[in-house]
Amino acid sequence: MKKIGIDLGGTSIKAGVVDGGRIVYKDSRPTDLTWGFEKTVDEIAALIKIVADLAKVDFKKCGVIGIGSPGLIDTAKGEVVYSNNIKWKNAPLAKELGGRLGVPVKIHNDAKAAALGESIYGAGKDYKTVALLTLGTGVGGGIIRNGKIEETQVAAGSLFGHMSINYNGRLCACGRKGCLEAYASATALVADAKAVMKINNLDGKAIFDTYRQGDVAAKKVVDNYIKYLGEGIASIINVCCPDAVILGGGLSGAGDILIDGLKKYIGDKIFGAGLIKVDIITSRLGNDAGIIGASLLI
Amino acid sequence: MKKIGIDLGGTSIKAGVVDGGRIVYKDSRPTDLTWGFEKTVDEIAALIKIVADLAKVDFKKCGVIGIGSPGLIDTAKGEVVYSNNIKWKNAPLAKELGGRLGVPVKIHNDAKAAALGESIYGAGKDYKTVALLTLGTGVGGGIIRNGKIEETQVAAGSLFGHMSINYNGRLCACGRKGCLEAYASATALVADAKAVMKINNLDGKAIFDTYRQGDVAAKKVVDNYIKYLGEGIASIINVCCPDAVILGGGLSGAGDILIDGLKKYIGDKIFGAGLIKVDIITSRLGNDAGIIGASLLI
Repeated sequence: MKKIGIDLGGTSIKAGVVDGGRIVYKDSRPTDLTWGFEKTVDEIAALIKIVADLAKVDFKKCGVIGIGSPGLIDTAKGEVVYSNNIKWKNAPLAKELGGRLGVPVKIHNDAKAAALGESIYGAGKDYKTVALLTLGTGVGGGIIRNGKIEETQVAAGSLFGHMSINYNGRLCACGRKGCLEAYASATALVADAKAVMKINNLDGKAIFDTYRQGDVAAKKVVDNYIKYLGEGIASIINVCCPDAVILGGGLSGAGDILIDGLKKYIGDKIFGAGLIKVDIITSRLGNDAGIIGASLLI
Repeated sequence: MKKIGIDLGGTSIKAGVVDGGRIVYKDSRPTDLTWGFEKTVDEIAALIKIVADLAKVDFKKCGVIGIGSPGLIDTAKGEVVYSNNIKWKNAPLAKELGGRLGVPVKIHNDAKAAALGESIYGAGKDYKTVALLTLGTGVGGGIIRNGKIEETQVAAGSLFGHMSINYNGRLCACGRKGCLEAYASATALVADAKAVMKINNLDGKAIFDTYRQGDVAAKKVVDNYIKYLGEGIASIINVCCPDAVILGGGLSGAGDILIDGLKKYIGDKIFGAGLIKVDIITSRLGNDAGIIGASLLI
């Protein structure tokens, strides 16, 4: 059966028709944070109708429609309890969207939905337990055990970005000191690079490209970045013991630089190194993980 | 049905007959690390017979006998894959003990067995998800979700003591820098106290007793200790999102000093503070958690 998945974010709303883990049609539109809840629901409903029409499916015959949303989620009630990103509080998304469309709707946290997608159809499909780390504006995450999202209060937990790697360290936007996000997000990497590299339009890709060219300043920035991220991942492994850690988000495009560097750095920082096997790999579904994962919510 | 649980440690072997979560009879003997595997299995078997006899139960009618063992465990094979503590490697404990006694034996990691005991019959019984942190010679842990030990490769994971809270910090016995264990174990607390307090026979209890008397040096040591432990617990909550964090091990005897201090310190270091509810409480089963938890392994 073809399924519909929505990836709702602060920048865009993405909708896709998914068949056996592959997107057969997708579309997106920018999110306008001034819309408020009701108008946003209307926009999501309209986008669903468009992608269904263009994929030539009847959205009423696609079973549950799944949505990954930023923030804390009451999955039983179908509510976005709080999202700093899209500025909602106790928003009854599943009920309102389901009412407009006349179909059942399930919601979950966006990073966890993406982790589910990677786990079932992406880089994690050969593993029992996977942890997804998204390296973008922030550092997000999700843990999937036996094909299911690790269930917690209001879909909290797996907030890998808010594990402190340095209790007297950098101030995080969340108010805590030393959070992994303050060191290992793309935002943090670019800020670190700007302090020592004089390149126009500096972004993650430019930093890694410059690194590949043998630039000394870029090497220092990237080595430090790998150290920070490696510290976070070593702790994630010691605490959560996934079979694979999947890197997603913009920076995962650095591929082998990150993977090889992390493997070397983490080494015996894993307790029981040599006796447990944890692969560190990059996302296979990329930006589609959110849509595909959302389509799997039931 | 009465059940038998064993808590195997580097210092002692404890065995108990358990009925509905209460120990009806228990006994222990010191562990001798020179015994080696075979002799230790004999000693465990002998102790089981003694406690069963004295509790007037037939150990062959107690179903599966459960053992919590230090180290990494292959729960399916019933093997202690590696224990630094009791110096075993690939030790077929379940098979050997089961063979000697003629009953089925299940083994799991000791801290995880203790967490199971606390979750089902102790401080965690009213919670869906609990994280147990043991504050003793080291810092151990276990996570129970829906009444089950979180399953991982060789019973690894939940190694809260080996989450780094300071990547350039104190060297841990495991070789990593900044591990929570290097700051928040009883060993670390006593070492910190010895540097500034001039008291004979300084141990955890003496430190907290001196603190209660208003001693300035003790206050500084305890405040720092709460900070270190609070950093670890805040990260555990952000990553694992249990409904309760249970403090066990010797230092948990400090009770309200720790609990009140931790609640105050952690405060809004939890992401979504105010929207999720995580209780921080002390163990109810104390040293019996291991035996009771082991008796629940099936």
